[in-house]
Amino acid sequence: MPSAAGRGQGPERDRRPENGEQPAADDYAKERYGVSSMIQSQEKPDRVLIRIKDLTEEKADEVVWVRGRIHTSRAKGKQCFLVLRQQQFNIQALVAVGQHASKQMVKFAANINKESIVDVEGVVRKAHQKIGGCTQQDVELHVQRIYVISLAEPRLPLQLDDAVRPEVEGEEDGRATVNQDTRLDNRVIDLRTSTSQAVFCLQSGICQLFRETLIRKGFVEIQTPKIISAASEGGANVFTVSYFKSSAYLAQSPQLYKQMCICADFEKVFCVGPVFRAEDSNTHRHLTEFVGLDIEMAFNYHYHEVVDEIADTMVQIFKGLQERFQTEIQTVNKQFPCEPFKFLEPTLRLEYREGVAMLREAGVEMGDEDDLSTPNEKLLGRLVKEKYDTDFYILDKYPLAVRPFYTMPDPVNPKNSNSYDMFMRGEEILSGAQRIHDPQLLTERAQHHGIDLEKIKAYIDSFRFGAPPHAGGGIGLERVTMLYLGLHNVRQTSMFPRDPKRLTP
Amino acid sequence: MPSAAGRGQGPERDRRPENGEQPAADDYAKERYGVSSMIQSQEKPDRVLIRIKDLTEEKADEVVWVRGRIHTSRAKGKQCFLVLRQQQFNIQALVAVGQHASKQMVKFAANINKESIVDVEGVVRKAHQKIGGCTQQDVELHVQRIYVISLAEPRLPLQLDDAVRPEVEGEEDGRATVNQDTRLDNRVIDLRTSTSQAVFCLQSGICQLFRETLIRKGFVEIQTPKIISAASEGGANVFTVSYFKSSAYLAQSPQLYKQMCICADFEKVFCVGPVFRAEDSNTHRHLTEFVGLDIEMAFNYHYHEVVDEIADTMVQIFKGLQERFQTEIQTVNKQFPCEPFKFLEPTLRLEYREGVAMLREAGVEMGDEDDLSTPNEKLLGRLVKEKYDTDFYILDKYPLAVRPFYTMPDPVNPKNSNSYDMFMRGEEILSGAQRIHDPQLLTERAQHHGIDLEKIKAYIDSFRFGAPPHAGGGIGLERVTMLYLGLHNVRQTSMFPRDPKRLTP
Repeated sequence: MPSAAGRGQGPERDRRPENGEQPAADDYAKERYGVSSMIQSQEKPDRVLIRIKDLTEEKADEVVWVRGRIHTSRAKGKQCFLVLRQQQFNIQALVAVGQHASKQMVKFAANINKESIVDVEGVVRKAHQKIGGCTQQDVELHVQRIYVISLAEPRLPLQLDDAVRPEVEGEEDGRATVNQDTRLDNRVIDLRTSTSQAVFCLQSGICQLFRETLIRKGFVEIQTPKIISAASEGGANVFTVSYFKSSAYLAQSPQLYKQMCICADFEKVFCVGPVFRAEDSNTHRHLTEFVGLDIEMAFNYHYHEVVDEIADTMVQIFKGLQERFQTEIQTVNKQFPCEPFKFLEPTLRLEYREGVAMLREAGVEMGDEDDLSTPNEKLLGRLVKEKYDTDFYILDKYPLAVRPFYTMPDPVNPKNSNSYDMFMRGEEILSGAQRIHDPQLLTERAQHHGIDLEKIKAYIDSFRFGAPPHAGGGIGLERVTMLYLGLHNVRQTSMFPRDPKRLTP
Repeated sequence: MPSAAGRGQGPERDRRPENGEQPAADDYAKERYGVSSMIQSQEKPDRVLIRIKDLTEEKADEVVWVRGRIHTSRAKGKQCFLVLRQQQFNIQALVAVGQHASKQMVKFAANINKESIVDVEGVVRKAHQKIGGCTQQDVELHVQRIYVISLAEPRLPLQLDDAVRPEVEGEEDGRATVNQDTRLDNRVIDLRTSTSQAVFCLQSGICQLFRETLIRKGFVEIQTPKIISAASEGGANVFTVSYFKSSAYLAQSPQLYKQMCICADFEKVFCVGPVFRAEDSNTHRHLTEFVGLDIEMAFNYHYHEVVDEIADTMVQIFKGLQERFQTEIQTVNKQFPCEPFKFLEPTLRLEYREGVAMLREAGVEMGDEDDLSTPNEKLLGRLVKEKYDTDFYILDKYPLAVRPFYTMPDPVNPKNSNSYDMFMRGEEILSGAQRIHDPQLLTERAQHHGIDLEKIKAYIDSFRFGAPPHAGGGIGLERVTMLYLGLHNVRQTSMFPRDPKRLTP
């Protein structure tokens, strides 16, 4: 059975929609529809495909070609209404019996499986009234030709309309929503929703803004190895790799390498890359593999020089997202309503003891050197929001006891340290510190922590040939995306999340 | 023994140069030099540190503070000449007995170990004649104060001057050079050389130009997982990871995930990240972990739409490097002389059969469907350079037999394929193809290659719900840097290279 002759796309293949509709010989529109042969780069036609988002009233009465997916289709007598989708945008298309379309063509169009990709030629027409369900509300497409480019199987594992439905509608109206495992198991389809498209375009923007800002500030991008010979922080929570006849580990952070670059005079470095944690944590915010946005910087006299640079980088990201990704933010908000993200300029910096005091005032009992529990972090986030009206702040001067051995002690109060966390909507997104750049003190602190000096010899030796004072921090990309958008699970902001129970797809 | 009082940097620590020089009580300059206490962020002085590269004649007679490393020092009677280095730049500094400096101070300065970091206050003076060994040739610094900020150990594992010496000088004049293993074993020091600084600043630039160009072209950056559940291309050359109670693999390429993103309507995606190959190849161009610059893109009718975008991206990188990194290119050229990199616009695209014909004309015997050996690739590169005067070209339409199963066959000649490699100076930097987007054909081709269909089920299933035609490719970052600069070993362009014999530092 031949495909539509009009396309001339090389050798014919026997492929048809499940319903088996193909042009019949007595059909006056028979060359105007059909299943195209597989695009194998047979030819380079001049045809221009117009983007759906560009189909506006200005294009009224023009004949255009569009490639899109069949989002929905609804036949009604001699007409078939299609919604054609392209990324976040969609338009209504009408196939109606008439000069260009036969009743066979309407039937063919109505029977194309959802999510199939089609090429459509049509006239752009002003709509008589706003078209509710579409992003292109003022125009519709009157179809003159339609060819299937890639056919979807008839049964979809999930429906896109269900996948973008706000949870509240599911709960209150009993309408279908899609649970997280179904989404992740069928990620190729779940990622097609307007919400997913927006989330990951915005995430791409975060990476770009992070790097753009740092390059402008004179930072150099570095690439650090992920396969390492020794577990950097003592060996807990580290994945083992078999490496030829020996074994190795996956880096839990690029920190040692960032610091080596500082010792090698790169002065200001950043890197963006995977970070691996073999923690058996099954929470909304832990992944076994996530993307670290890492910064390390030599400073002159005070680590606040670095804190200020990092905080300003975050502020530039927040501003850039507001400016460049408003459409994406609004798209996500439709499914996941959320207050706009608020921040101050310059960023609010509180000392740990101030945070503890605020918590105590709110009834929390904790010691001066206790670490913050997750609930207390969240509570403090709410208290800070009430008092200062910001969703982003820095908590500075953590107790030395709760920080890693390489953290520089505070010069005045030896129970404190030159270390800090940064928070978005009450959850930690960055942890950082001035690092000890003096091999003698570093050795003392490692011994104090009971760390085997032999295992960190290479690390300590890095500082023996002159090391500038430096500080830095690591940011979790997925957390930043999640918290900026007010989402509730880091799996929503990791394209292919990895956790102790999930390694696929 | 107190450090110099002038710094006021918090609690004193007993730390001194190996030679033990510290100010003596009867020294009129005693507060003008010494070993500073460790910078622990005790204070935030107003002091402005000037960059060495900004010390030019315009600053003559100004008093400035500079932080730099002691690159060399040479005492001569009542004077000591220091060269202070900061990244790629350096300046001569003179400490001479007089109003500001005592003979003890000159001795102190002369005895500071090389590579130590010092803060120096001095007057910028015009030099009487060009200062040969320094980047700042027109000025020198007359030192009034000097404090050691971080002391290097007295014995360096390698000398920076040896490490930047052109190999030819080593061979012809018998002067010391540094071998690669010594460099890599002591990478923190080796990376301080002007050559290394330039190489890795330029590499950071390649990444930035790659992304800048693609973002401008409408691409979205994606993050793909590195821990995967199944070995993507049949299980050879893959590293195994222990994953909780089970095992997993390290991704040999992000290709499946890029393709899934295409099937998920992202249309144009790129990613920059580590790629792992468990190949026991000990050559100048193989690493077990390298950085992949990966592109995947849906096209309308012909995969050359994608080839053109990739080639133009490379051209934008080459142009950007020429414009923004001229200093770095020249710095590297001093140690590793090399012809400037040449390219055409648009990029030269030859068909594989044309390449084979050129090789045969040059006396090479090979069949139409034989793959190119490495020597033949290099020879072809030279022939192309002679004939077309370009160091960058595309070889298109490889024999189907030498490409992976997912490669789209050529629509006209079934022995060929819609696949391509790109070359710089005769070495492959990118391999790519139109991918089969049709699950039926993909199944057939996998079977033809004897691949277990069960193992690639998830891959094939990705294409069952409508898949646009698409093509892409993967670029090796370290190779691009190496070949652009005309270097000869990929370990020179990987900060911390990994190969079958090296996992450290």
